[in-house]
Amino acid sequence: MDDFIFRNPTKIVFGRGTESKVGAEAAVYAKKLLLHFGGGSIRKSGLHARVTASLKAAGVEWVELGGVKPNPRLSLVREGIETCRREKIGLILAVGGGSAIDSAKAIAVGVPYAGDVWDFYTGKAEPREALPVGTVLTIPAAGSEASSGSVVTKEEGLLKRAFNSEHAYPRFSILNPELCFTLPKEQVANGITDIMAHLLERYFTNSRPVEFTDRLIEATLRTVIDVAPRVLAQMKDYEAWSELMWAGTVAHNNLLNTGREGDWASHDIEHELSGIYDVAHGAGLAVVIPAWMKYVLKHDLTRFVQLAVRVWGVDQAFYSPERTAREGIARLEGFWASIGQALRLPGIGIGPDRIEEMAGKGCEGGRKLGHFVPLARADMVAVLKLAL
Amino acid sequence: MDDFIFRNPTKIVFGRGTESKVGAEAAVYAKKLLLHFGGGSIRKSGLHARVTASLKAAGVEWVELGGVKPNPRLSLVREGIETCRREKIGLILAVGGGSAIDSAKAIAVGVPYAGDVWDFYTGKAEPREALPVGTVLTIPAAGSEASSGSVVTKEEGLLKRAFNSEHAYPRFSILNPELCFTLPKEQVANGITDIMAHLLERYFTNSRPVEFTDRLIEATLRTVIDVAPRVLAQMKDYEAWSELMWAGTVAHNNLLNTGREGDWASHDIEHELSGIYDVAHGAGLAVVIPAWMKYVLKHDLTRFVQLAVRVWGVDQAFYSPERTAREGIARLEGFWASIGQALRLPGIGIGPDRIEEMAGKGCEGGRKLGHFVPLARADMVAVLKLAL
Repeated sequence: MDDFIFRNPTKIVFGRGTESKVGAEAAVYAKKLLLHFGGGSIRKSGLHARVTASLKAAGVEWVELGGVKPNPRLSLVREGIETCRREKIGLILAVGGGSAIDSAKAIAVGVPYAGDVWDFYTGKAEPREALPVGTVLTIPAAGSEASSGSVVTKEEGLLKRAFNSEHAYPRFSILNPELCFTLPKEQVANGITDIMAHLLERYFTNSRPVEFTDRLIEATLRTVIDVAPRVLAQMKDYEAWSELMWAGTVAHNNLLNTGREGDWASHDIEHELSGIYDVAHGAGLAVVIPAWMKYVLKHDLTRFVQLAVRVWGVDQAFYSPERTAREGIARLEGFWASIGQALRLPGIGIGPDRIEEMAGKGCEGGRKLGHFVPLARADMVAVLKLAL
Repeated sequence: MDDFIFRNPTKIVFGRGTESKVGAEAAVYAKKLLLHFGGGSIRKSGLHARVTASLKAAGVEWVELGGVKPNPRLSLVREGIETCRREKIGLILAVGGGSAIDSAKAIAVGVPYAGDVWDFYTGKAEPREALPVGTVLTIPAAGSEASSGSVVTKEEGLLKRAFNSEHAYPRFSILNPELCFTLPKEQVANGITDIMAHLLERYFTNSRPVEFTDRLIEATLRTVIDVAPRVLAQMKDYEAWSELMWAGTVAHNNLLNTGREGDWASHDIEHELSGIYDVAHGAGLAVVIPAWMKYVLKHDLTRFVQLAVRVWGVDQAFYSPERTAREGIARLEGFWASIGQALRLPGIGIGPDRIEEMAGKGCEGGRKLGHFVPLARADMVAVLKLAL
């Protein structure tokens, strides 16, 4: 097991109607907050009204900044930073999914920083402090509600980049599975895919031994595989949603990578897809991951066999590990197809023409992607060609 | 899934030689700390010297309070509270296992409290604040290094009682698996049993649905079952120790009971055994739990079947769930016997003569034990008789 430091300070408030507690949680940190969200869906659903009623009751003022898009943009982050400085904001409250939360985290680290917030995404600087962030989660997917990461896209050059910092953990996150009942099914499928991707990225490691965290990841994957079709079949199934929502948080709260180094090449590759084509992150991952798996399969066949047997219940062909491993990948593809994902680039509207460009951006300056098998530019091209 | 609030703020510093970081971690909280530990083993092993060297290097002063016994005593807690007040101590650093840590937590909540610290253990009061606690863990077992609980024994009446409070989470815990290499094997077996007991107490619940946390608990149990014999066979197996140590922490850090109500009757019953007879907690649990399981088996046979199949790999007799369930219990007994545990009361030096007295104390004032099946006094007597 690798040495590690782990501390996740996020307070999770989980259950029916918990958005009514947001005022009390926010009041611990601030008298005035930035209410940060995406489009109009939280107004239509009545969530905006319930959240602001709770803030009012707790005596907390707020300034609104809506308009966060999927693959959140740097320009809105800059606007948020200016607003927070001008309005002397004490807390950023994201109401939404990963995009609103990632954007809120970017604002939070940007406010006390004298330089350009993009520095954190290029690795030029590391956050040393941040405004506190709270969240009301509406889409189980990104896991950002209890994670240390943030992903933002810079419009010039369509660069999608991430940073991780202990300062980026939200102080509290409110999880009410009922808020998921009205999500579009396509978004749910993308969320399920993203959760599974977070687990698979952690699973593929060269660290040893990782028996305990392997088993925790497998347990979480099996849970998602069990409940995901139930959620899609019956969108008001609170019980199934509660399992999926909590699993989505634990999948990405850094417990499951304690003592091990994850891979994350598939996320990096997908960032190049959704940076240029603006496809949904989950949809991109469903295309990239199976291709990536086939490309790196022989690096550690045993790991693929273990995944196939323990997670997918594949009947192990003891004398033919490769067959077992490939059957595991086929089951993953079958599962993602069953929830409506396309498995190849053309299915998400991407042809072969900009593969070289994406690989060039992804591996700019000789950067290699991933840790399980570090991928150079030619490898990224090969993975994307396998995905055609 | 039950509604829940979860926040575990403990910082885990895990790996080889990490005790050398204790000074830097402690200096965040205090210039002067109480160094709290048990007998002389930490001096013999050189751990005391390494910890104090690290404190010195970080400019942290300390006052020593050794002498914590297994089943830590209230009188020493009172002494610690006086010392902390007199010496203006800012942090309590426990170096040891669950007893030293539980005693440290008791001191921590006692110092700022005007009343009697025992009030927290009787439920007469709840802690509202506490001195910070840090730990250097030497025995994976109690899970107290990242838990919200503390168990202390009051000498008058030999009352062993517990409290839980968010103020009882340590601020940091240093986990170096190498520190376990020199533990007596009997203590290791008791630690393994205690870890498994923490998992089983959480497993037996009436909450629904609990698919995700069921699977996480099963994953942790399987890990312990896998690595425990390896640790006992080769006491310097760092890799196996690292898995066991981290699993022991996660088993009890409250993640695995999110959204579910555990049972805990077996712990309560065992507290009466070790309160009177001063047997090791783990040894007591190995006797109580199988008897408890047989007593409550029919309350939810399916849960026992699931445990048998998923954790012990029992070949399920689909038409005879009781046979499958009982086979699961037999496997647990076999496993505990294989690591050297006695499975019946006489094996730990306890006869039938004080069973009524223990049940009287455990169920004093009509108190019922556990949640899966709440046990009255007559039930506790029956469980203990099954353990004879």
